[in-house]
Amino acid sequence: MRRFPEPIQNAVASLSRLPGVGPKTALRYVYALLKLPKHDLHVMARTLVELAERVRTCGTCFLLSETEQCEICADGRRDRSMVCVVEESRDVATVEATGTFRGRYHVLGGTLNPIEGITPDVLRIRELGERLQADGNIREVILALSPNVHGEATMMYLAKLLSPLGRRVTRLARGLPIGATVEYADEITLGDAMKGRRDA
Amino acid sequence: MRRFPEPIQNAVASLSRLPGVGPKTALRYVYALLKLPKHDLHVMARTLVELAERVRTCGTCFLLSETEQCEICADGRRDRSMVCVVEESRDVATVEATGTFRGRYHVLGGTLNPIEGITPDVLRIRELGERLQADGNIREVILALSPNVHGEATMMYLAKLLSPLGRRVTRLARGLPIGATVEYADEITLGDAMKGRRDA
Repeated sequence: MRRFPEPIQNAVASLSRLPGVGPKTALRYVYALLKLPKHDLHVMARTLVELAERVRTCGTCFLLSETEQCEICADGRRDRSMVCVVEESRDVATVEATGTFRGRYHVLGGTLNPIEGITPDVLRIRELGERLQADGNIREVILALSPNVHGEATMMYLAKLLSPLGRRVTRLARGLPIGATVEYADEITLGDAMKGRRDA
Repeated sequence: MRRFPEPIQNAVASLSRLPGVGPKTALRYVYALLKLPKHDLHVMARTLVELAERVRTCGTCFLLSETEQCEICADGRRDRSMVCVVEESRDVATVEATGTFRGRYHVLGGTLNPIEGITPDVLRIRELGERLQADGNIREVILALSPNVHGEATMMYLAKLLSPLGRRVTRLARGLPIGATVEYADEITLGDAMKGRRDA
């Protein structure tokens, strides 16, 4: 294949680092970028530099933030008695969108997966324990991890680890998602939905 | 939805300009970028700036290039009697990969599409005519545009326009692609493949 000019090759190589983007997609991106005004490319480059320089994690909950303390931790109106444990920063946006939680968060940084080297010490589990010990206001820890193999294992691990601290440890309800069909529901989900039934 | 820190919002906005990338994919990209070392983000930003600053189009054939004359036009071993007309720079890489063409190129910049405002004066058709008039060495113009509606219209237009210049104007053969099934071939392709048959 013909060698592309060096700046194009370099741009393809760096865009290929995006998730799910291979050399072909990266090249498509580069051709599209070359059609933009020069100024826009400079702006885009600037946003990447700012991403590197201005985004850090909150010292308390490890949410991505511009400041030492994130907006949520700094917000005095949030309920300090509840901490919602999520896998990644992105999950905070999803939980916030529901409008059903007014407490604070703790970003774990992943779920346990020993085969891929994600052991308890890689996650922010020690920090969660320390936070609970330091902050007597926290009465409930909500484990909002995905109910898949690794998420379930992590939730079991955390529930066991945190029980001696005397705080209520809860997890998200399992049940039928909206729009689901009972006929096609798996038995575990349907069984949990049955146990967790409410007055209509 | 929760407001993200400003640098994240800005990066999402700029990555959303990539083709086929909406805010959700852009956010996914941003989270992946935040997991890279800072240095890598600076490198990526640099490649975008260089794309803007170092890539230009060849003065002769309009291929993307770092220099006033692209590598192909500057290469004395290339056949100066043939010019292959392609839609975009990316098509040059594809034709080069076949190893069947040793002439030079002319990048048209698109195909005629009057509804979207792509009229003959938007494309580099005038430049092609001028190039043919100025360069007596060129004996054949190969129209290597895609055989779809707009490509066909453009090829018809060019063939008519260029005929007074007394050069041979050819187009790519239409036939069955490798791996095709005769049963499912459309009648136009199969008809052309029949007319263009060769000794086995």
